[in-house]
Amino acid sequence: MRILFKNAKILTMENDKIFDGELFVENNVIKYVGEDALENVEADRIIDCKHNLLMPGFKNAHTHSPMTFLRSYADDMPLDEWLNKKIFPNEALLTDEQIYWNNKLAILEYLESGITANFDMYISPDVVVESSLESGFRTIQAGSLNNFTLSLDKMEECYKKYNSNELTGYRLGVHAEYTTGRELLEGVADMANRYKAPVYLHAHETKREVEECKSRYGCTPTVLLDKMGMYNYGGGGFHCVHMTQEDIDIYRERHLNVITCPCSNAKLASGIAPLKKFLGEGINVAMGTDGPASNNALDVFREMYLAAVLAKLREGEATAVKAYDVLKMATVGGAYAMGIYDCDVLAVGKKADIIMIKLDEPNMQPLNDIISNLVYSASKINVGMTMVSGKILYYEGKFHIDKEKEEIYERCKFNKYA
Amino acid sequence: MRILFKNAKILTMENDKIFDGELFVENNVIKYVGEDALENVEADRIIDCKHNLLMPGFKNAHTHSPMTFLRSYADDMPLDEWLNKKIFPNEALLTDEQIYWNNKLAILEYLESGITANFDMYISPDVVVESSLESGFRTIQAGSLNNFTLSLDKMEECYKKYNSNELTGYRLGVHAEYTTGRELLEGVADMANRYKAPVYLHAHETKREVEECKSRYGCTPTVLLDKMGMYNYGGGGFHCVHMTQEDIDIYRERHLNVITCPCSNAKLASGIAPLKKFLGEGINVAMGTDGPASNNALDVFREMYLAAVLAKLREGEATAVKAYDVLKMATVGGAYAMGIYDCDVLAVGKKADIIMIKLDEPNMQPLNDIISNLVYSASKINVGMTMVSGKILYYEGKFHIDKEKEEIYERCKFNKYA
Repeated sequence: MRILFKNAKILTMENDKIFDGELFVENNVIKYVGEDALENVEADRIIDCKHNLLMPGFKNAHTHSPMTFLRSYADDMPLDEWLNKKIFPNEALLTDEQIYWNNKLAILEYLESGITANFDMYISPDVVVESSLESGFRTIQAGSLNNFTLSLDKMEECYKKYNSNELTGYRLGVHAEYTTGRELLEGVADMANRYKAPVYLHAHETKREVEECKSRYGCTPTVLLDKMGMYNYGGGGFHCVHMTQEDIDIYRERHLNVITCPCSNAKLASGIAPLKKFLGEGINVAMGTDGPASNNALDVFREMYLAAVLAKLREGEATAVKAYDVLKMATVGGAYAMGIYDCDVLAVGKKADIIMIKLDEPNMQPLNDIISNLVYSASKINVGMTMVSGKILYYEGKFHIDKEKEEIYERCKFNKYA
Repeated sequence: MRILFKNAKILTMENDKIFDGELFVENNVIKYVGEDALENVEADRIIDCKHNLLMPGFKNAHTHSPMTFLRSYADDMPLDEWLNKKIFPNEALLTDEQIYWNNKLAILEYLESGITANFDMYISPDVVVESSLESGFRTIQAGSLNNFTLSLDKMEECYKKYNSNELTGYRLGVHAEYTTGRELLEGVADMANRYKAPVYLHAHETKREVEECKSRYGCTPTVLLDKMGMYNYGGGGFHCVHMTQEDIDIYRERHLNVITCPCSNAKLASGIAPLKKFLGEGINVAMGTDGPASNNALDVFREMYLAAVLAKLREGEATAVKAYDVLKMATVGGAYAMGIYDCDVLAVGKKADIIMIKLDEPNMQPLNDIISNLVYSASKINVGMTMVSGKILYYEGKFHIDKEKEEIYERCKFNKYA
């Protein structure tokens, strides 16, 4: 399939320039992007962009997609009660079939939000792969190893199995220090060194988590895991709200990725991550929604807005963390953190993970500064198209995946198991 | 015009219950709302809601609509530089014609965001009335009196002229203590007492504003104005971020309204308003977007989300300020603050300011808790219809006002005057 986009404004994210031009996709790859009009090119489909914007799709670099079933199920509650009375008992009863459908519901929302890839952590990795693959959606998973879920062997099996497909990937991962015993953590560190692989986990999300680790091991989670050799080949932390300078030094030196989740951190009253500091230290920052049970939307526009304005609140400076920096987190930064280096920008040879942003909506007018508009004013209503790996999965409000949205809604009805 | 809504879920906002039912509008008034199906009613139009939600429209209780021309024009800048180098020089060159069109652009965005009324403060009140009235939009204005703009006489003229129309209203208002000399403030207090009228102004937005007032007058703005008698008949403050217990006591005793603007306060690094405290004291809280130059969207969904999660961050409690409280601020609270008491809830005899929320979008599924979904997950994409005073001005993505959106965009192109 060859698709030619004409009359587009284009933001490649190689830099902050926007130009008028064309873009040509053949199968899953970008073959041309530039200001010149393509002559004599054979296309199966020509899309007139009507001066709307093409840009790389957003990367949701931390989420638990199959938790859609618990969206708005238990809000405004203390964390312990929420986890122990509402989340865990219901998750314990979840079947693979429900995980399959819940993941599809998340995919619909990703597409509507201009998200072209997610970095997922959940149970039943095989089911998640099946559900995403069938829909044509790009899902990279991180192992969710802890004392109760997954095993070193199963993680190794997934790692070997799911890194050969165009649309899927699997990274070594641990749920968190506080849910995972020392032996398991050391087992992961060993595996990371055997495969020269990066490792990802929830890290430094709450003050309590850091304090408890310090009383257990005498140091923060990042220091502990680094000493074990877990970060010898990189990786990253989801959340990274409460970090010492020593933790930040390790992130910088090991080229670890910060995956920030500003909405979840605010809603659960965890705090505000020091994004200005991370950027100043040259650390790569990606952005995630976290799961729908704690956010509750899967909406990168809202994450971008919160990342920018919470940084300003935290620093007490209206100048802290600028719009383009945030847009980079949500696109290029996400691709790097997830290890999908060919999905970062719009350039020849890169994967065709592309979205169209409707500039002809009132919230984007006038076009004083499109990048500012994207971060400070845009919302799902501005997503005109979402293309993953060269296939248009969402266009003008309609989904084009393997299942109808009505069936997905029906299958995702939740009967409050617990 | 008689419009019958069938197969609706209905949230009247008289309480937090949602039921399946019907709603009937005749001209500008709600004639029926209830669980029973209406038999033998003559309707000019029947709308099948397909189990989507009808609820009262959102009230944007603080905004400067004609500032759309400066959206995304100058972000991530220090406040002083932003105001003095970017905002004021451009506003000084603004013509009435531009104000007329800029206001229309804001109306498009209000309609798309489910906003049925705005509480505006800007220059050229006559032009704003004309622009809103022609579009069928409900605009209540507050006087923007200060040392440079408006006069006591002109404000009195507007007050007498614009309180007799169905769609418009005019409240006495001052820009802020820090922009308005003592004599003018006393003149407004006198007018408030002559007309037994409430008075509104920007109040306690920044620490600096409060500190400067204290060094000028030895007390906070609220204490100062209350001593002048300005609040004898109520009114309210826009922002209310930095408040002492004495200020809060005055708000409670004088039945003043807090109009919170969480996005603007975060983006300009002004701080987080103590919403939990206000609610605990029984103070009415309304919600506003502030102007598009400082927000930059006119989107009550984002305001609701920020109000809720910033309150949790401020208090360090995930339980602080619950979803229904926030939804009340954005609907009933706004109507009270603006003095449009017949636009607050869906009930017989109330004005037909109604929106339809699409529950059949992925971000609203499953329907575990529709109120939580509205506050924590909904966005503009969920607005299916916006009706103001019995007229459908937005329906299924199309605008039905006096001007075409393309013409409005064209007229609102901004050439960077200064």
